[in-house]
Amino acid sequence: MTDTYRVAVLGATGAVGTEMVHLLEQRRFPLASLKLLASERSVGRQIAFAGEAVPVEPLTPGAIKDIDIVLGATEADLSRQYARTIVEAGAVFIDNSSAFRLDPDVPLVVPEVNLADLKHHAGIVANPNCSTILLVVALWPLHRRHAIRRVVVSTYQAASGAGAAGMSELLRQSRQILADEEFTCEVFPHPIAFNLFPHDSAIGADHYCAEERKLIYETRRIFHDDTLRIAVTCVRVPVLRAHSEAVNIEFAEPFALEEALAALSAAPGVHLVEDWQRNHFPMPIEASGKDPVLVGRIRQDLSCDHALDLWLSGDQLRKGAALNAVQIAEALAGGGL
Amino acid sequence: MTDTYRVAVLGATGAVGTEMVHLLEQRRFPLASLKLLASERSVGRQIAFAGEAVPVEPLTPGAIKDIDIVLGATEADLSRQYARTIVEAGAVFIDNSSAFRLDPDVPLVVPEVNLADLKHHAGIVANPNCSTILLVVALWPLHRRHAIRRVVVSTYQAASGAGAAGMSELLRQSRQILADEEFTCEVFPHPIAFNLFPHDSAIGADHYCAEERKLIYETRRIFHDDTLRIAVTCVRVPVLRAHSEAVNIEFAEPFALEEALAALSAAPGVHLVEDWQRNHFPMPIEASGKDPVLVGRIRQDLSCDHALDLWLSGDQLRKGAALNAVQIAEALAGGGL
Repeated sequence: MTDTYRVAVLGATGAVGTEMVHLLEQRRFPLASLKLLASERSVGRQIAFAGEAVPVEPLTPGAIKDIDIVLGATEADLSRQYARTIVEAGAVFIDNSSAFRLDPDVPLVVPEVNLADLKHHAGIVANPNCSTILLVVALWPLHRRHAIRRVVVSTYQAASGAGAAGMSELLRQSRQILADEEFTCEVFPHPIAFNLFPHDSAIGADHYCAEERKLIYETRRIFHDDTLRIAVTCVRVPVLRAHSEAVNIEFAEPFALEEALAALSAAPGVHLVEDWQRNHFPMPIEASGKDPVLVGRIRQDLSCDHALDLWLSGDQLRKGAALNAVQIAEALAGGGL
Repeated sequence: MTDTYRVAVLGATGAVGTEMVHLLEQRRFPLASLKLLASERSVGRQIAFAGEAVPVEPLTPGAIKDIDIVLGATEADLSRQYARTIVEAGAVFIDNSSAFRLDPDVPLVVPEVNLADLKHHAGIVANPNCSTILLVVALWPLHRRHAIRRVVVSTYQAASGAGAAGMSELLRQSRQILADEEFTCEVFPHPIAFNLFPHDSAIGADHYCAEERKLIYETRRIFHDDTLRIAVTCVRVPVLRAHSEAVNIEFAEPFALEEALAALSAAPGVHLVEDWQRNHFPMPIEASGKDPVLVGRIRQDLSCDHALDLWLSGDQLRKGAALNAVQIAEALAGGGL
């Protein structure tokens, strides 16, 4: 049994891939080697890692060999294209795309919630959608104590959800608007600077958008509860890299506020930001670059005696994507894959 | 019976007061005279109105005479201070502050919803809170058809909720952050540029903030329904002057989507923005400077067969404040006060 691992990052130069590389270094992942793979236009770049410059290599099927763990930070089509190659090469593929999230043969894992599912993997592990990860980290410690009956969520999603290009567009448009210049929309279909809009993912026949369906169906899979009722509205806001969510939670029975607070303050991956005196609660700028999901404003719902409200912010690129994937890699490594 | 009216605007140089003056001109309010009153530091300024320059006069008790209608756009303490003077001078006071909104002797009016309440005024009419006005304009056409049992609202509130100074702070901080400069928080307790936070109004023992309590108690008063159950989370976002709201509406019985759409498309003050093909729904930049509340994304809630979701945006300074007050003035004028 080895105690170090040969790791490759697919899409290593994107917003999530970059964060994965940072986290492997920061968390001292037991690496035997690190291979950074990306599309042709990034080849030739070098990425600093632990004092060395690691060259970015082209992502080709031939590049996937002598690897133990592949961290995927590409779009779903590329993930689908490479999955078989990765598995046949004997590596475990931790995929951040939506490609395999609802595949019954692929565990969908948030370590704080359903780490046990990891042992059923057959070469692929799916990393959930960012809004889903942040939500389940906050809901699970409550759901374990008193069954949740229904959740109504409104999201406040950062530009980073559309990658580095989304963040650049927010900054560029903001500059243009402040300078009274014409501005263009290249990444988002509508202006994102000083504006907001319902999430621009594809809308289905049920009038929910893809982002909303992910949150519903992925949360149910992670909780192993197909009956969990979730209403959700996803909204993009002019914030750089942390998502926030307003969450109304209806339980099967009344849930004492003190008990909820105690459960959340002891929950892994949760940090309470709950300063009623100074009106200081989770905020995206304070969640950015941090590991935990910030949770606060936990209160009794005045409209329903068995419901609570909470408010959360979490780094979309970290816990919402790269950190969760690296935590899965750590769990695999800890268990000898 | 006169057919023109002597109007005064209190706080005429603030964000709401300025909009009131614009609207009186734009909507050709039947004016006999217009008096613009403000605090000492604005005195000496002149405001363009119908091709003339109207001087700003100091707000003093002596200034309130020979007036028929006073439009108030000041803070609640000033409204309280001047209310008796105004009423004793024989004028009707349409007050945009929170001072009298829950006073049982003062009608709280949104013309599209409860215009009939106006006839019970005894010299003072209260203009509701901005988020409340936008919400009730969208909910009333539904509530009239099928009783609403419970509403879960999350707001996305613009900087203009803190007046012209709030908007300036958003623009200034944005510039400073983009230039990598230090920035300060003067109006809001937390950074507003590229950030968002739960509404900074005073938090009560029930853990709801003042803005949230306004939305609950004012909506109940306007609907004449003290049993209406409302859960609400109010959030400030880096948008200039239009508020948005994600609204989950539970009815006593199922409400067909087509019927809801028909009710909303025929509703006064509502403009449907509902383009599922192009993923184009209400947005603050498109609501800004417009009169109607933009409503869209009306869909069946997948988590509850007797619930619908909708999304709205409305100009906080217009329908959320100045326009509603001017509509009340028009109704008073139309009825000979």
